[in-house]
Amino acid sequence: MTEASIDVIAIGNAIVDVMAPCEEALIEELGMTRGGMTLVDTARAELLYDRMGPAREISGGSAANTLAGLAALGAKCAFIGQVAEDQLGAVFAHDIRAAGIAFDTAPRAAEPPTARCLIFVSADGQRTMNTFLGASQFLPAAALDLSVIADAKVLYLEGYLWDPEEPRAAMRSAIEAAHGAGRKVAFTLSDAFVIDRHGAEFRSMIEAGQIDILFANEHELAALTGTDDFEHGLAALAPKLAVLAVTRGEHGAVAIAGGERAEVPAEPIAKVVDTTGAGDLFAAGFLFGHVRGQPLSDCLRLGAICAGEVISHYGARPEADLKALTAPVTG
Amino acid sequence: MTEASIDVIAIGNAIVDVMAPCEEALIEELGMTRGGMTLVDTARAELLYDRMGPAREISGGSAANTLAGLAALGAKCAFIGQVAEDQLGAVFAHDIRAAGIAFDTAPRAAEPPTARCLIFVSADGQRTMNTFLGASQFLPAAALDLSVIADAKVLYLEGYLWDPEEPRAAMRSAIEAAHGAGRKVAFTLSDAFVIDRHGAEFRSMIEAGQIDILFANEHELAALTGTDDFEHGLAALAPKLAVLAVTRGEHGAVAIAGGERAEVPAEPIAKVVDTTGAGDLFAAGFLFGHVRGQPLSDCLRLGAICAGEVISHYGARPEADLKALTAPVTG
Repeated sequence: MTEASIDVIAIGNAIVDVMAPCEEALIEELGMTRGGMTLVDTARAELLYDRMGPAREISGGSAANTLAGLAALGAKCAFIGQVAEDQLGAVFAHDIRAAGIAFDTAPRAAEPPTARCLIFVSADGQRTMNTFLGASQFLPAAALDLSVIADAKVLYLEGYLWDPEEPRAAMRSAIEAAHGAGRKVAFTLSDAFVIDRHGAEFRSMIEAGQIDILFANEHELAALTGTDDFEHGLAALAPKLAVLAVTRGEHGAVAIAGGERAEVPAEPIAKVVDTTGAGDLFAAGFLFGHVRGQPLSDCLRLGAICAGEVISHYGARPEADLKALTAPVTG
Repeated sequence: MTEASIDVIAIGNAIVDVMAPCEEALIEELGMTRGGMTLVDTARAELLYDRMGPAREISGGSAANTLAGLAALGAKCAFIGQVAEDQLGAVFAHDIRAAGIAFDTAPRAAEPPTARCLIFVSADGQRTMNTFLGASQFLPAAALDLSVIADAKVLYLEGYLWDPEEPRAAMRSAIEAAHGAGRKVAFTLSDAFVIDRHGAEFRSMIEAGQIDILFANEHELAALTGTDDFEHGLAALAPKLAVLAVTRGEHGAVAIAGGERAEVPAEPIAKVVDTTGAGDLFAAGFLFGHVRGQPLSDCLRLGAICAGEVISHYGARPEADLKALTAPVTG
């Protein structure tokens, strides 16, 4: 196996987040699932946008956010995702390239427009997401350069993108290419509702050894394992994976790898402004430690620090100097 | 004269701000005028955007920002400005309507695209703006509903929009309509370079009594009056206007109306994050006091509080509850 020249390559939704603060009553009135991610069609997206307050647009997408964190830490990254040939597509492409991430997926010159996620942020920082997948769901397997995937230490995949057919097929061939080259596959479960739809498939992929590193939060762990007992869930899942990392919000995170277990408390934060991207940036810090070969407890600490940074401001991409923040752990 | 049903109607650039932090060296390398506003064409806009870091998009436009502040304070407002029929145009229209401001200018179904302003924000919060005027410069006089202008206490005009021919003609007819209905005309000089280009015209408009309320910063005052002596400039200009309000950055602001003079210190701010919109929000607070008939010193205090809010975060539109912040002055 040759030395990989990329640390992490990711396949994910190419999304621009449209974010605005919101009153609790509006979430109820609009029938949104507080704290969740719901896919919406054009009509619903328009209705929700009409009711949203003045917003700001910041590039997002779960796996893309993770790469933004990794790149800020100094990792070499590449992203694969589908935008349309429109203004929001240009915004997404600019932002990911400006973060130092290679991004070569050609924009799609057809309807629908670039994906956007309407994010209603509550006073306590909780985010309620409504995703219009747009062009993102038409990422074709043909857009993948398998030689580039074979050249990355880790292939990182986003569960959110498992819904649409074309990207799912693309991700399946990417897994094959990565494992064919002796690389590792990391997967984030993304959302409990994604598991409601695709849990059986995720479980069989794990059984078949197609996933090496799994990221989940405690709700996703419960949905995947079918038990609300956290320890039982961990015990059932961990032996089937090289690495299992589970986040527990304000209660920190747990990771198990090769029988070793480590835990980390959540990073103390003066004020939680917007939790969008917390899981994504946890994965960024954790993977950064992982590709550098740091101990499991360091990987967790790096994840906690990066998650703590991103929830202290609006938007799911890091703003502070992550290298400086993580220096006590990276040395 | 009938009672006006609108407090302030404004004509201005319909712009989405694209903002990113930047190192000092980049401003020099790219030959930008630190702290200024420069008009850029498509090629220059693309070059600058390529060199900009990961950005966020937030609706802007000087007069539109002022209205966002006024609306947040509880004033009834309407905006006139030209967007194109594209995604950024939809973003601008959403944000201004979501702020509670009437906006009925039809989008323009042709090239160029909606205006954007590439804003490089220095570590000290200073903003360096590069404006691609796009659709904004094609606001036709025909887009004005003169009966609505006649129905507003104050017509507020943005100097930035004096460059392109069509909006300039539109603003001239708006001034006539406002004065014909016995309303007041407020004007912001916007930028010293705008005065370099149009100073003679501005001076003759002031001489002719076409402007009642003038907003300027100290550099603009110097450019307009041709003297660097602040007091001489004030003394020369104030007698020609019903109200003259001049901002001095961290040194606060001065206003003169009918021979009365008042001053206010700058609002103390924990950290200046981004000065974009400081002048716009000063005008918002000042005009809010003015349309309510508050004393000159209160108008200044309201301006200082609103400016202080907007420079404490990214973006030129208010985020905190301006009504609560200004309650000590509005009673």
